Amino acid sequence: MTIEALPLSNVDIQGGFWGQYQKLIHEATLPAVHEQLEIRGTMEALKLNWKPGMPNKPHIYWESDLAKWIEAASYVLAKQPDPALEQQVDEAIALLAGAQQPDGYLNAYYTVVEPDKRWSNLRDQHELYCAGHLIEAAVAHYEATGKDSLLNVMLRYADYIDQVFGPGENQMHGYPGHEEIELALMRLHRLTGDERYFKLSQYFIEQRGQQPHYYDQEARARGEDPASFRHGTYEYNQSHRPIREHTEAVGHAVRATYLYAGATDLALATGDETLAQALRRVADNLVQRRMYVTGGIGSARANEGFTFDYDLPNDTGYAETCAAIGLFFWMHRMLRLDGDSRYADVMERALYNGILAGISLDGKSFFYENLLAVKRGTERTRFSPYHRQSWFSVSCCPPNVSRLIASLGQYLYAQGEAEVMVHHYAASSARLEVAGQAVSLSQQTNYPWDGEINLRIEPQQPAVFTVSLRLPGWCRSYAVTINGEAAAPPVERGYLRLERKWQPGDTVRLHLDMPVERVYAHPEVRANKGRTALQRGPVIYCLEGVDNGPDLDAIVLPRNAPLEAHFEPDLLGGVTVIEGDALRESRPPEVDQDEAYVFVPPACHPVRLRAIPYYAWDNRESGDMLVWLRDIPAG
Amino acid sequence: MTIEALPLSNVDIQGGFWGQYQKLIHEATLPAVHEQLEIRGTMEALKLNWKPGMPNKPHIYWESDLAKWIEAASYVLAKQPDPALEQQVDEAIALLAGAQQPDGYLNAYYTVVEPDKRWSNLRDQHELYCAGHLIEAAVAHYEATGKDSLLNVMLRYADYIDQVFGPGENQMHGYPGHEEIELALMRLHRLTGDERYFKLSQYFIEQRGQQPHYYDQEARARGEDPASFRHGTYEYNQSHRPIREHTEAVGHAVRATYLYAGATDLALATGDETLAQALRRVADNLVQRRMYVTGGIGSARANEGFTFDYDLPNDTGYAETCAAIGLFFWMHRMLRLDGDSRYADVMERALYNGILAGISLDGKSFFYENLLAVKRGTERTRFSPYHRQSWFSVSCCPPNVSRLIASLGQYLYAQGEAEVMVHHYAASSARLEVAGQAVSLSQQTNYPWDGEINLRIEPQQPAVFTVSLRLPGWCRSYAVTINGEAAAPPVERGYLRLERKWQPGDTVRLHLDMPVERVYAHPEVRANKGRTALQRGPVIYCLEGVDNGPDLDAIVLPRNAPLEAHFEPDLLGGVTVIEGDALRESRPPEVDQDEAYVFVPPACHPVRLRAIPYYAWDNRESGDMLVWLRDIPAG
Repeated sequence: MTIEALPLSNVDIQGGFWGQYQKLIHEATLPAVHEQLEIRGTMEALKLNWKPGMPNKPHIYWESDLAKWIEAASYVLAKQPDPALEQQVDEAIALLAGAQQPDGYLNAYYTVVEPDKRWSNLRDQHELYCAGHLIEAAVAHYEATGKDSLLNVMLRYADYIDQVFGPGENQMHGYPGHEEIELALMRLHRLTGDERYFKLSQYFIEQRGQQPHYYDQEARARGEDPASFRHGTYEYNQSHRPIREHTEAVGHAVRATYLYAGATDLALATGDETLAQALRRVADNLVQRRMYVTGGIGSARANEGFTFDYDLPNDTGYAETCAAIGLFFWMHRMLRLDGDSRYADVMERALYNGILAGISLDGKSFFYENLLAVKRGTERTRFSPYHRQSWFSVSCCPPNVSRLIASLGQYLYAQGEAEVMVHHYAASSARLEVAGQAVSLSQQTNYPWDGEINLRIEPQQPAVFTVSLRLPGWCRSYAVTINGEAAAPPVERGYLRLERKWQPGDTVRLHLDMPVERVYAHPEVRANKGRTALQRGPVIYCLEGVDNGPDLDAIVLPRNAPLEAHFEPDLLGGVTVIEGDALRESRPPEVDQDEAYVFVPPACHPVRLRAIPYYAWDNRESGDMLVWLRDIPAG
Repeated sequence: MTIEALPLSNVDIQGGFWGQYQKLIHEATLPAVHEQLEIRGTMEALKLNWKPGMPNKPHIYWESDLAKWIEAASYVLAKQPDPALEQQVDEAIALLAGAQQPDGYLNAYYTVVEPDKRWSNLRDQHELYCAGHLIEAAVAHYEATGKDSLLNVMLRYADYIDQVFGPGENQMHGYPGHEEIELALMRLHRLTGDERYFKLSQYFIEQRGQQPHYYDQEARARGEDPASFRHGTYEYNQSHRPIREHTEAVGHAVRATYLYAGATDLALATGDETLAQALRRVADNLVQRRMYVTGGIGSARANEGFTFDYDLPNDTGYAETCAAIGLFFWMHRMLRLDGDSRYADVMERALYNGILAGISLDGKSFFYENLLAVKRGTERTRFSPYHRQSWFSVSCCPPNVSRLIASLGQYLYAQGEAEVMVHHYAASSARLEVAGQAVSLSQQTNYPWDGEINLRIEPQQPAVFTVSLRLPGWCRSYAVTINGEAAAPPVERGYLRLERKWQPGDTVRLHLDMPVERVYAHPEVRANKGRTALQRGPVIYCLEGVDNGPDLDAIVLPRNAPLEAHFEPDLLGGVTVIEGDALRESRPPEVDQDEAYVFVPPACHPVRLRAIPYYAWDNRESGDMLVWLRDIPAG
């Protein structure tokens, strides 16, 4: 039995940690991103007036940025009226409609810059990727507002794409160099019920990596040697082999997660177990061996992606915000597939850390890369400081983090025939139908700052069903009460299963112990040997220079040092900080401070260590940052 | 007063550590290198018969490889007759003579492959570099054998080069992209007394980096954009600015050290203090901030050279054998310039570690790069194992290490008016003239395995002079006796100064305490935070997988763990090993061994640690290697 995510329309986030962030997206981020889209000419490009020699030449990615902004705005509009925002959305949609070609094609770059090159370089270019994001935006916009203005545009475009691509003799046998349209077509299929979109998505997924290799043929058709592909290997875009033969997370990380998200949709729809097995295999490889403790993925800048097992350097690396978002999307689908909380754990790890770090506390600047150690004077920082920026030359991350946070409600709950699942904890309410009863559910919590979760369950009539509460992977001790009485429910696949005849007004209290934990990485992760990270609940912590001074690697944390956590309402928008006694090493004064190598060990003096949530770093005075602290092994 | 190195002719290495290595070079390495030169076609190329389509196309570096082999062979022949070797040398010289063009030019590549391109790309190509090595070989050959066969060839070539290059209107204002000829011309000048060679060397050194920049002009003349230089910056070849403005060690490390060696010769000859100051500045930067504990230099593979201060990664990096040799050459000249033992300390550090690691114990295989940490499955090792090889596509290192070891005698001693300096300790004898007296000096020692050095001083007649004994930088406790009686000589610039009226048969005993030392790097060296290296005397130690198992980074060394050293005559040709009690970390068995991140710290169990000299690693069973061990800070 498949567990279906509870759609956004049925869930309201109300205050709390995520309510605050949704307000920020609405009030600060969406206007800031919209302003950037105007400044950069993203909207202007859709007027198709660009001529050689003019500024703001349309960029191959631009539609995707605008699409994600529309998608994010739609999620906001789904929850509250905002006529000004709605007007901006309508204007953007009008521009998109105006840029659509008679045959349905829609891409400013290939319409005005290289009109004769349409579909000629799927490997490197992004027409289908942009189309995918536009489709997602169209679905979100329709679902949020009931308006079909963008949906109609995208149905025409999708129909055109469906004519162009496919197994037919007169069709192109290609597939996108940057995956995304696969999962978008699945969404469009779910909305419309039109099987063509499902089949086309399936074609793109199944055709990928088949021989003869489409990108070889395409390169030759352009008069290029396929071997001159600048990323060297088709692992870069996961077309190195057909998807059922994939065993490891390889190549560009965003590409990989979007592909696997779409492929998991496919496995869910078809029940294809060989595909599901391949997806589980790749997910295991990724989560066990190629993921940072923050849920960041992709440890190399060169390919914006994966390298090899346990290669997770902290001060180089990449960990693109969008890749963590892609991981979140994929893991949500794996959670639907297997109902196993470990996928929800990964979602949570990425959400509170690798994703949330991507946006500043004022909602107006963004990290594209999310390193776990930043130090002045290193390879990464000596030429330019490492800070969030208001925009990037390729600016996928700002609107991506916007749409995720704005739509977060749809990831919190799921429902089956006689089951309500609570995947994630956030102050919220949900409306669903279970065991034939309309049930409303409200969740009160101060998560992630404490582990106290209060649920109120209101079936219209008393009914037997299961309320499944995720027991987070980080939680080592917990207690459950139902209507104030201790309960000892079984745990299955990481969920506490509370099955009973629920009465209107029943309350469940889940208490998750949330001590400060020291995290230790797998021994094969070279970068973290002799190091520990601090975690409390789902939140990974870091040291920041502004609190702890420079050279954070001079700080060592004795294993028995007590660490305490307390909430500081006025710090960084309100965060729980961790403090404790540590040691700081330095060269003793009698040693020549210039000498490269000496026989005298560093001296240690006591210091007070202060750690803040990783996501909140770089919101104050500029300085160094460190997640993995030096640990003193038990000697 | 300048201190002059005692020339090779006056010094004999007799047995001991270096006698064994010189025998190895003579009996194993020179034949092995000669065989490779034949196999690769290096000699054949000099017959100038190559035509397009034939195998073994002459390579732009090849004369330099052969030159260094001739130079090394000459040093051997200087000390002992070997008619077969001498015949090989004569044959090689005949080939070189036969390849010389009527105008004196000598380079097989530019004679047969691109005959119209002579001198057209000084920036990237190696004609002047090869000429430099051939000049060094010619000088060594003449001094060793008295034969002028190669010298005459090279005088003709040098005269031709002197016509082509220089400040004159009809001369080229260029200089070598790979420095080397500067120091070679200084040697040729010292041998011949011909001022032209001195002036030409000076021109190459002084012209370097002047504006308008020669490499810009030269690139444009080739129809290239100077900005397309593949190394991006002229720091690569130290022509980023004129030499007196140099402040840091930058670019390709071998290039840098060869340039500065030649420039130090220039400063010594001219007494130019502004040049000397620049050289001291760069040397300080290099030695304090850009040198591995092994004396290896050049921490990036991309430029085979320097990066930025304190960037000394152990498992990537480069540390080319030839760069450590170049450092040795340069520091020997700085030692002449300032008479300060710290330069001799650097020579010694490089010699026993970064250089000697470059050659296997059987003398027949070589490291080009000398990493300080090798682990299977890393960026550096996952595609190809990391081992010494019998040859390289660019094979500068094997003949370079040969010529250094074969000529080591000339680096041991120096003499001034009334002073004998002992820079380095090795079983040897020397003949010199000091204070008007012929003095013979013999040194008996088992260095580097113990710090016991016995000198016997034999002036023809009793005479007052100073015997200066270097107090190595690594030595923290020592004792001196003269004829069995304790002495307390002053220490100046790192030398024990024993001034007295020396009688024939006087003996000096220097005892250098040689405990196992733990080395700690400068706190800014990120790669070595929380780590210590083991050193005994001048020898840096490492752990090898064959002795200590895999995953050497799982081993932690408590700071109070006693370490003992003992000599093992049957191990690795006879080495002192270090052993001690350490701890090995592992995941406790109750922890999921696949999980990326856990809250349970590694458990420690006691292990016996066994360290061998770094230079001797990779001579047994293949495995990992580690110099900088994890250290348990005093908690």
